Parts: sequence; structure tokens; C-alpha cells
Amino acid sequence: MSTDAALILDRCDELATISSDPEHLVRVHLSPEHKAANELVATWMEQAGLSTWQDAAGNQCGRMEGSEPGLPALLLGSHIDTVPDAGRYDGMLGVLLAIAVVNRLPTNTLPFAVEVVAFSDEEGTRFGTALLGSRALAGTWDDDWWNLRDADGISLFEAFQDFGLDPARLPGAFRRPDDLIGYLEAHIEQGPYLEDADRRLAVVTSIAGARRFEFTMTGKAGHAGGTPYDRRKDALVGASELVIEIERLSKQQHVIGTVGKLEAFPGGVNVIPGRVEFSLDLRAEFDDDRDEALRLIDEAADEIARRRGLHFSKHEIYRADAVVCDLDLRAGIEAGIRTTGDDSPLAFWSRAGHDGMAVVAVTPIAMLFLRCKGGVSHHPDESVRASDVAAALDAYEAAVLALAQR
Amino acid sequence: MSTDAALILDRCDELATISSDPEHLVRVHLSPEHKAANELVATWMEQAGLSTWQDAAGNQCGRMEGSEPGLPALLLGSHIDTVPDAGRYDGMLGVLLAIAVVNRLPTNTLPFAVEVVAFSDEEGTRFGTALLGSRALAGTWDDDWWNLRDADGISLFEAFQDFGLDPARLPGAFRRPDDLIGYLEAHIEQGPYLEDADRRLAVVTSIAGARRFEFTMTGKAGHAGGTPYDRRKDALVGASELVIEIERLSKQQHVIGTVGKLEAFPGGVNVIPGRVEFSLDLRAEFDDDRDEALRLIDEAADEIARRRGLHFSKHEIYRADAVVCDLDLRAGIEAGIRTTGDDSPLAFWSRAGHDGMAVVAVTPIAMLFLRCKGGVSHHPDESVRASDVAAALDAYEAAVLALAQR
Repeated sequence: MSTDAALILDRCDELATISSDPEHLVRVHLSPEHKAANELVATWMEQAGLSTWQDAAGNQCGRMEGSEPGLPALLLGSHIDTVPDAGRYDGMLGVLLAIAVVNRLPTNTLPFAVEVVAFSDEEGTRFGTALLGSRALAGTWDDDWWNLRDADGISLFEAFQDFGLDPARLPGAFRRPDDLIGYLEAHIEQGPYLEDADRRLAVVTSIAGARRFEFTMTGKAGHAGGTPYDRRKDALVGASELVIEIERLSKQQHVIGTVGKLEAFPGGVNVIPGRVEFSLDLRAEFDDDRDEALRLIDEAADEIARRRGLHFSKHEIYRADAVVCDLDLRAGIEAGIRTTGDDSPLAFWSRAGHDGMAVVAVTPIAMLFLRCKGGVSHHPDESVRASDVAAALDAYEAAVLALAQR
Repeated sequence: MSTDAALILDRCDELATISSDPEHLVRVHLSPEHKAANELVATWMEQAGLSTWQDAAGNQCGRMEGSEPGLPALLLGSHIDTVPDAGRYDGMLGVLLAIAVVNRLPTNTLPFAVEVVAFSDEEGTRFGTALLGSRALAGTWDDDWWNLRDADGISLFEAFQDFGLDPARLPGAFRRPDDLIGYLEAHIEQGPYLEDADRRLAVVTSIAGARRFEFTMTGKAGHAGGTPYDRRKDALVGASELVIEIERLSKQQHVIGTVGKLEAFPGGVNVIPGRVEFSLDLRAEFDDDRDEALRLIDEAADEIARRRGLHFSKHEIYRADAVVCDLDLRAGIEAGIRTTGDDSPLAFWSRAGHDGMAVVAVTPIAMLFLRCKGGVSHHPDESVRASDVAAALDAYEAAVLALAQR
């Protein structure tokens, strides 16, 4: 096994121990675990020869100068926050690959600086809105987000302060387009297509657009025994119908719709649910397909609510349109993959969202996918082969060198 | 308005202020609010001439002797715990009516003692298993319950200790059948039948049998974007199908099935749910009907799980068979209702469970229902008319006096 790959996997294991729950990996934005992870990543960045800083949004950054100080930078990176009960590779592996690439690069000779960024929030686990770290870097921050609250009622503004960050200095995280030449991210595929094709690596053509919503179905709570069916306004039966319709309509429209959160309130075993709060994550290769599916889901929700005497409402918490990867950067990644013995790199779109969706506002982006076992992610069973990590590292390094040759 | 009824309603309002949530009434078993409610109820009991004690299960008790000390007792009562976001009459009104009845009774002349009991746990909100207070009194306690845990992981055993009760002394709450002559409970109907019939009071013929289960549907968590539909094992879509089947089968079989709790895990907005925990409350006039419906629900669950590659499991947390009210006690309550000007009291079965289902193990039981607005209960909109409360108090007092004449 490549010792570099072994080191990367060891570091993934070590990062995975930094979790707010000892049983299940979860590390959210601006948490004590986030701080500890930043410090550990900074140590590794420094060992690779990077000068490091934590930016005004809590992103952990490192920089290696090129042939002269102050050149525009090629950004490499990914994120170090997780979903609840996460695997240990989604995000983290991309950060550690980037650090390992820099560790291999020749110092002070490239025609650009190289920076590594470990984004603070890509998943949106804590505040519901994703890409907070990369949007700060891209200057597309929305000041309304300061009022977002986590499950404990803590606002994003307060969380920044608790973390030791000054919300007023957030604009300092913004990177000017002139100071950047592009952003490359390596990431596990989070899908089964590489495995099905028996291939290790792929280049990403585009990142799917996604929209996320908080749904509320409101009925009337009542005693489970005393309320005849013809008088019930059971919010959970209505929400359940919609969950099934979302699956049916998504398949029919060739989009991907997922209800990941759902909870019935007040939640008494003998109380008819008066309110259900649930989520929708909707994504597609083309934005128009996604929005047409949403229209049909809205229609279904209204029909269910009308028929059952319920009230349906929705609130959009995230919207990103599909992002096309830069052709020049893509060519660099394809060249990198070719150096690993793969003469015709696979190319397909990412069903999952990535930090590049935000970063593209300031610089072109491209991505390298590597195979993961069973296509599983967002689950402790996330798994990668060491030999695939070694190939990804080789391809990633070669991609950077190929871009340096342009 | 009857000043007695006004006092009862004022006391319901006062009890409703004792809540662990200032916005929503919730007062659960062995909580600090339970202690405060017991103390307040004890004060009112003492004002009505009862000698008071808290029994070994946390039930608040009071006793008025009959024509000589130590006679067997007629128990009057209900419960003072609540569901989450409760109304203020379910349970509490029955306790306060009982105290008001005793306040009106002649002292030291009845051929039996009269006791009032405010049961500590009827709803089962905190530990999932209901009737803990009345089962302690009835000597049908199951020592396995000591290991029941609340949402914070606190066991029932620990909760007893935290409340200042000694679990080893629990058997002291048991009441010997020889010391009791019967149990009467007044309660809001929790259904619409009295209102539909434009009547104030009814006598209960039987209390429906109920069974309650914790259901778990297990699939596999995964990334919402990266997992194609043909590879998903989405526990929430499966659970949603079962929720709808439970409604359909319950209607078809003329039983009442309710899913009151449901939550998807891990609960990330972009994570396919790998596990759903939900509940079933199933009740019917006849136990055989209830159990046949359960068989059909089980079949549906297995079919859904098989088709979707999920695993379904269930755990019974509560089971009570239908309980028939005692004909003599019923006759007393009917006589009481007649004194309020209603010559042909309505009689029907209770869809809801009540403490009498446990108490019947040691003494005969009967119940008086009074009308509630819209049949609503287990909801802040629970409402009763003062004139109905006045009629219930008159009927309840007359019922006790009628039983004293036997």
C-alpha cells in the first residue's frame, strides 16, 4: 500500500474521533469539535509546508507560495463538517488528499500559489442552510443567515461569537477573484456508478442543482381514542401520503427527491398528531426538471391538505442551481487521471452538492471523484480502498502539475 | 353559575399553570411539577376535610371516614399527569370534582369511608407505559417497569428516587380489596357523542381495550443525492406506507388505530432515513376485533418491509383488555344523573383508557362522562361548560349518596 495513502486513511480515522457523540460521528459547524478539527488540520497543513490561518468564517486555510510571493492561488479543498452519524470520508478525505498533494509539490517553483481550505460548513447540519463556509469565501453571504437558529435555539450570530469569531469581520473571509485561478476538489463519489463500471476515478461534469425545504403539515391534535375518523385532522397521515407521493413523482420525473427529516408533534403515543415537520431535498441534472417536479409535489400537497382538512406550508432553506465544471480545469483532472493508467476517464454529473457550487461565484471549479464502497455515504459504512486513495492522490498531484504547465 | 363549579374551573386553571413548559401544558410522572401538583391538590383535599398522604407510588390520596373509623372506602378519583401540550380538564377535572363531592358530603355518617385519589400516571407520557399509578394501587405492578427509561435515559427506578420515593416500598401503595367497595371516576368524554346528542352527562358501559406498540422500521441511511432509487432502503417511505395502511385497515375493521409518535433518524435534511421509530395505539369495543386488526397491520408491515428491503420490528409497551363497568355502581351513577333532570341517561363505551382499567383488579368500577367541546381532548382547546360541570358535580354527589342508601 502507498504510505501516503495509508497516512491519509490514518488521518481520516483520527479526524473521525473528534465527534460530539462518542458512538456516532457528528461534527457540526462552530462546535467545540469543529475547533479541535481545525487545529488538527492546521498541524497537518504546517507539516506539509503550508502557512496556516483560520479565516473569518471558521474555514481552516493554508498557503504555499509559488515561484514568487503573492501569486494568485489554486485552491484545493473540501469540508470537515459532517451529517449526523456520518462516515469518515465525505469531505475529510478531500481535505487530506489536498494536504498530501501539497506535501508532494515542488516548493517555490509553480506559477501559482497553492492553498488548501477545509470548509467549515458544507452539510448544513446545524443551521439547516448549507455551504456557509464556502459562501463566506465566495462573498455570497446573506445577512439574514445570522438569525438562523440551531436545534438548541442558538443563532448563527451567537454561534460565531461562541466560537471566538467576530460576525462583523465575516467579509474578511471573502476572496477576490483576481487572487484565485481555480478550485479543485477531490471527493468520494457518493454514488454507485464508479463501482458498477469497475473504475477508480472520474471527472465531474457538473454539480446538480438542489433545493431544500422545510415542510409543515398542520392538523389538529386530539385524543387517539375519543376522536372518530370522520372528525380527525391527522397531520401525520397527511404527511405520510406526501412522503409517498414525493417518491412516486420523483421517479416519474427522473429527479431525486428525499424526505430526510420528519417528526410528528406533540408526539404522545395516544395523541393524534396535530403537526408534522419534515424536509424535502430535491435535485436533478437540469434545473427545469427539478422545478417541474416541485410544482407537482406542491399540487399533491395541496390536494392532500384539502381532502384531509389540513394546512400545508413550505419554507425554502436552500437553493442552488446546477453548476458546470470549468473545461480547462476538467482537462487538468482528466490528464491527472490518465497518469494513473486510465486512458479514457469516466465523466458524469454529481448528484450531491459540493462547496464548488459556492466557490464558482469567484473562480472556476472542477472535481475529481473516487470510488466508494456500495456508493454509500452519509453513513458510518462509508468505505474507500487504500489503492483508490493512492490513485486519487497521484491523479490529483498530476492534475495540479498539468495545470502548472499551461 | 354554580359557585362550586366556578371554584372547580378556577382550580383547573391553577393546576394548568404547573407545567414544565410555560407555553404548553405538560406535567409528567415524577417530575418537579408532579410534586407541586400533589402538594396543591393535598391542600384542597384538606380544605374539604380529608386527611391526606402521598402513597408509595406518588399518588396523592385523601380520606374521609364514614360512620365509624376504618370502614371500607369508596374511591373517587382520576389522574393529574398530562400528555404533551395538553388541555386542562382530562384527568384534573375528575380529581377536582371528587374533592368537591367530598366537600358536600355529610361527615361521619356514611356507611363507608370516602377516599379521593389523584393518580400519578395515567397517560404514560414519560415512560411509555400508562397507568403506573393505578397499577401500583391495584397490585398489578410489573418489576420489569423499573428499567423503563424516559427520553433523557432516566430509569423509572431512578425517577422514583429523584422524586423522594423508595422503590422498595412500592408494594405499600397496594390497596386490599377488602378495604374498598368500589371506584368512581368522572371524566370529560373525549369524544363527540354527548355534544352530538345535545346531552350533558353519560354513564360509561365499558372501557375499550387498548394495546400500544413501539414500531421500528430499519433500512439503510445514505446520501440523498448519490443513492439511486433502486438502491435505496428508505425507512421513512416504508413507515409512511404503514401509517396509511393503519388508517385504512382500522376503518375497514371498525377499530381505532393511531400513530401518535414518529421520528426519522438520523434526521439530516440530505440523508436517506435509515431508521424510523413510531408508535401504534390500537383500541376497539371488543378485544377480538382489536387483535384481528393488529394481525392485518402486522401482515401489511411485513409486506412493506419485504418489498422495500427493510426490517420491521415491534415491541408491545402496553396492553389492557376491555373492562366492563359494574352494574350496581352504574346504577348509582344513573340515579345521580337522573337527579339532574335527565330521565334516561345516555350510556356508551369509552374509547379512551382510564385508571379504572387498572383499579378493577381490586374493586368494581364505574364512570361518569361529561360533555366537552367538539369532543376535543389531549389538546389545549379542551373545553367544558360551567353548567355541565355543575350538573356533573350534582350527579356525582347524588351517585355517592345513592350508593350509601343501598
